[in-house]
Amino acid sequence: MRPEKIPSCRRSGRAGENEIIEHLIKCYAAPHPALKKGIGDDAAVWLPVGAREFQLATTDMLVEEVDFRREWTTPRDLGRKSIAVNLSDLGAMGAKPRFFTVSLGMPANITKRWIREFYDGLTSCGHENGAVLIGGDLSGADKITISITAFGESENRKVLYRSGGRPGDLLYTTGTLGKSAAGLRLLQQGIIRSRSGSRLEALRAHRTPDPRCAVGQWLAQSVGARCMIDISDGLSADLPRMCAASGTDAEIFADKIPVFAESALWGCDPLELALSGGEDFELLFAVPRAKKHLLKNLPPGFPPVTHIGSMLEGNGKVWIADAGAKRRPLPVGGFDHFSG
Amino acid sequence: MRPEKIPSCRRSGRAGENEIIEHLIKCYAAPHPALKKGIGDDAAVWLPVGAREFQLATTDMLVEEVDFRREWTTPRDLGRKSIAVNLSDLGAMGAKPRFFTVSLGMPANITKRWIREFYDGLTSCGHENGAVLIGGDLSGADKITISITAFGESENRKVLYRSGGRPGDLLYTTGTLGKSAAGLRLLQQGIIRSRSGSRLEALRAHRTPDPRCAVGQWLAQSVGARCMIDISDGLSADLPRMCAASGTDAEIFADKIPVFAESALWGCDPLELALSGGEDFELLFAVPRAKKHLLKNLPPGFPPVTHIGSMLEGNGKVWIADAGAKRRPLPVGGFDHFSG
Repeated sequence: MRPEKIPSCRRSGRAGENEIIEHLIKCYAAPHPALKKGIGDDAAVWLPVGAREFQLATTDMLVEEVDFRREWTTPRDLGRKSIAVNLSDLGAMGAKPRFFTVSLGMPANITKRWIREFYDGLTSCGHENGAVLIGGDLSGADKITISITAFGESENRKVLYRSGGRPGDLLYTTGTLGKSAAGLRLLQQGIIRSRSGSRLEALRAHRTPDPRCAVGQWLAQSVGARCMIDISDGLSADLPRMCAASGTDAEIFADKIPVFAESALWGCDPLELALSGGEDFELLFAVPRAKKHLLKNLPPGFPPVTHIGSMLEGNGKVWIADAGAKRRPLPVGGFDHFSG
Repeated sequence: MRPEKIPSCRRSGRAGENEIIEHLIKCYAAPHPALKKGIGDDAAVWLPVGAREFQLATTDMLVEEVDFRREWTTPRDLGRKSIAVNLSDLGAMGAKPRFFTVSLGMPANITKRWIREFYDGLTSCGHENGAVLIGGDLSGADKITISITAFGESENRKVLYRSGGRPGDLLYTTGTLGKSAAGLRLLQQGIIRSRSGSRLEALRAHRTPDPRCAVGQWLAQSVGARCMIDISDGLSADLPRMCAASGTDAEIFADKIPVFAESALWGCDPLELALSGGEDFELLFAVPRAKKHLLKNLPPGFPPVTHIGSMLEGNGKVWIADAGAKRRPLPVGGFDHFSG
């Protein structure tokens, strides 16, 4: 669940979500001989008898007026984003996308053209990342409701979980953080289109995020990253999840975070958006210190990779420090303005 | 998509659904080396490299006030039914259920207790059929929205598709048809509970259908059935689907159909409900004439299996005949009262 796309809905639900998920893990996470990872990571992982590679599955639901507004996007872009948020979860495991199913709840006023364009966006983003539509369901609904399940496969059985990070590992993120939230702020201000470079970039990041599947596979295959998660709820929510799963704390440096500085032009706080804006769908990962040189071989066309901190001994807490200043705790999910 | 649970919604959408699915198959059904069956059957089927068995996936979305009403069911029964309709699709392929994911869209007034009971029902029905919860998503929503994806596995690579039926094959159905729709009629009349045997039976069939997974596996493994589908929209809608996929026509005999005769007590037409009521989740299958004796070895505890007709040369049409009378076409989906 991604927060604060439409203010008030997501944010309020998130605490409840964590609680429900803990309850589900406690009560229903039954063992199965083929299952490597059930509830609690970006995707579930199993190994069918005899299979060379792990099979992965992840699912996400997008609801109109909670996750998007019809007037803020096109059906094609909505299709692209719907599959992208699922592929991002596979990317965060270092897996290759293979297949996906789509269930679509449709209000009566949805046109055939809308449906065609939605599936066009969905399948073209799927194909670009190697995933083929294999089934789904259609239903009536008051609000457009999109539920996708994406299936992936490991390569050489290398899968990156949220767990696996160790104290001393270096923390990195792909791309720029807070750009999608900056785009959302524009939409909330009624700015639906723009010719300007940075506004356009922010709107694009919000409407059609790129799933980081190729980077994720490279980090699993060629870099030997130790753990990974996709940043869907902001650093301040997703980094503690990775730390809790790894049994570590983490320290990040405010001035190293690749914020989207241009958002200050329309009244945003770039650091705040990077920490708690959400929906960036960049990858956050940890690399053993001895392997950091491998990141220099970043293939052309890949998003930049930025060192933002390191893992520490601990149990799930995250600390933030300004250059030279004493570090302070970073509240989970919420960002109390960090004034240095 | 199952019709007519709440009158006016499903029924009107169904023609549109078939049209959309045809468009999806035409435009987006891309090939993939591992994929055995994509869009257009009860479940998708693929074979990972090296794997001993086929992997299957199916997905269904249930929306409040389209597929169910909160006041007509308990959260536990709703959980059971939500997973049952998915497991039914795996049963119809002759596959073993393994895993499932659940995305749940929740209105703000849903209580923690509701959520707990819903997941209790969901997971207990899953476990009874061998399927473990491995992940999901939570979202805000105006109406309760449940989207489940269920994963299964073949045994000895025997999977039953809708296609595969041949002229001369005998047609059978499990259980009783029209019972769930008779239960819905009671609910629509305001009869939410009952002590009477037949009313109670109808309400149960509607609220907590049994997925026919064990029967489906037996038909695939021990009987050598040629094709199969689950009856979610009534014989008059699902039999033409199986015929179209098999490239045959079919003839059924009105007086052989195992209708729920007791529904006449509350003003229903049992034959009409069997033909077009929907939501029975029984299995409809074809068996070569030479193998029909194998059905006599029905294991104890399995639902009865009834011979209702046969496959004919043709291209997807279905004919219905009363004892000794001339057969007439059975309209797809809709049932014009059959008076003999």
